[in-house]
Amino acid sequence: MSDPWQKAYDFAVEVARKAGAEIRKAGESEIRVMTKSSTVDLVTKTDERVEKIIIGALKAEFGEGTHDFIGEESVAKGEACILTDKPTWIIDPVDGTTNFVHGFPFVAVSIAFAVNKELEFGVIYSCLEDKMYKARKGKGAFCDDDPIQVSDVKDIHKSIIISEHGTDRSKEKVTKIFSTMQRILCIPVHGLRGSGTAATNMCLVASGAVEAFFEIGIHCWDIAAGAVIVKEAGGVLLDVDGGPFDLMSRRMVCANSDVIANRIIKEIEIFPSERDDIAIKKK
Amino acid sequence: MSDPWQKAYDFAVEVARKAGAEIRKAGESEIRVMTKSSTVDLVTKTDERVEKIIIGALKAEFGEGTHDFIGEESVAKGEACILTDKPTWIIDPVDGTTNFVHGFPFVAVSIAFAVNKELEFGVIYSCLEDKMYKARKGKGAFCDDDPIQVSDVKDIHKSIIISEHGTDRSKEKVTKIFSTMQRILCIPVHGLRGSGTAATNMCLVASGAVEAFFEIGIHCWDIAAGAVIVKEAGGVLLDVDGGPFDLMSRRMVCANSDVIANRIIKEIEIFPSERDDIAIKKK
Repeated sequence: MSDPWQKAYDFAVEVARKAGAEIRKAGESEIRVMTKSSTVDLVTKTDERVEKIIIGALKAEFGEGTHDFIGEESVAKGEACILTDKPTWIIDPVDGTTNFVHGFPFVAVSIAFAVNKELEFGVIYSCLEDKMYKARKGKGAFCDDDPIQVSDVKDIHKSIIISEHGTDRSKEKVTKIFSTMQRILCIPVHGLRGSGTAATNMCLVASGAVEAFFEIGIHCWDIAAGAVIVKEAGGVLLDVDGGPFDLMSRRMVCANSDVIANRIIKEIEIFPSERDDIAIKKK
Repeated sequence: MSDPWQKAYDFAVEVARKAGAEIRKAGESEIRVMTKSSTVDLVTKTDERVEKIIIGALKAEFGEGTHDFIGEESVAKGEACILTDKPTWIIDPVDGTTNFVHGFPFVAVSIAFAVNKELEFGVIYSCLEDKMYKARKGKGAFCDDDPIQVSDVKDIHKSIIISEHGTDRSKEKVTKIFSTMQRILCIPVHGLRGSGTAATNMCLVASGAVEAFFEIGIHCWDIAAGAVIVKEAGGVLLDVDGGPFDLMSRRMVCANSDVIANRIIKEIEIFPSERDDIAIKKK
């Protein structure tokens, strides 16, 4: 039992690839859209179907009851979002639903696995690009079979920073988001980008295309797999206030280095976001 | 002579592909960077070399002196940027230099051709994605060999809008850019994106992945090829004040429809930008 989770890791890669193929296929047929909290936060039939495919495959392989599951769609329907010591899968079947609906080229399947509340591995399949990002704790990060690592740029003025506008359109939040972006752009940095998916953004950090990604309002399933991949690629994860990263806090900075992360943190205007694990207790 | 420019069009596609291969190759070796007006506006050796390759090939094929050339790098060195009635090539060898330097996945070669001041065709090779976008006046737009068309979304609330922050970091401009983006996000729309290259942004409009792209501060070589591709894909081009599109004005809205373009135009806070053709006369 020196490597107890290798089988689960290999299985996760295969399941992510199958799920991604399903998403690509669905993208070619007509996409029916339902509204969740607003027209901005889209949920498609595909989202629900792909989550069922993933969780179904994992339950069939590893036995129902022995593993826990946290998934975007199941949580939306009222299931628990508490990380226990049990082996737990944290799944976003379609990260980038808005991109998916529009055919914008970044859509990802994100699957992470935690034991004793610690992330053991993460798999992100960017299915329109056909790129498989993956990492196991202590074993490095990969895109397909190539090792990846974060950028070595330590000069903030030579960096590209990624963030997102999120789906909440309340004036206070939006104003703080734009104010933060403007402050960071004017440090100055080389540029700001946003792919429309947190999972892909984290892969862009891990593979060195950008120096950092930060967001307030993301969920644990958006970032759990990416957290392992960024860390294994040599990057760092912090809270937006500079404290330790907390998977359930709905806020995160990931970067190629502490120096870049801390420089960005100075400019971030924080707004409140309810924790993933508290939100669910109220239901 | 029913189709006098077919040979030039076919040749442009081949030259764009060769230039893109050169860019990809350069991206794999070490990238040396020189500063132009600031650390934000990057010019690489590759930029200059690729422009020479493109213009050299076109001059060899079509005879020096018979055609004019407007290219980003040659204009930066003081050559004319005036569109005459002569057959004129308008070239951006590497659109997305910042992306290129960082390995961010959108970098494009943009080649347009105008006769009697009218654009005859445009070719954009997104070389990291290996996608060849192209269009001839009156003959439709294509990605590789597949016809493309703009999105049919006419409801602004269901749209994705693209813009860029540009390379100018002066407070007045940056504040207006962010204010405009915030106003558009809060219409509300599904989301804002930015690929970091105007050429790719226009291809995303032409292929229906987003509903519109606008920017103030772009140059004629960034948008000339895209203008043909968007129009041939069924889209529209306007000035940011709603007037007719002017290639040399350094400002543009392109969209899937007049209704989307005009809705965005209502929110755009215009700031001054010196024309491409006036700027050069002063040199």
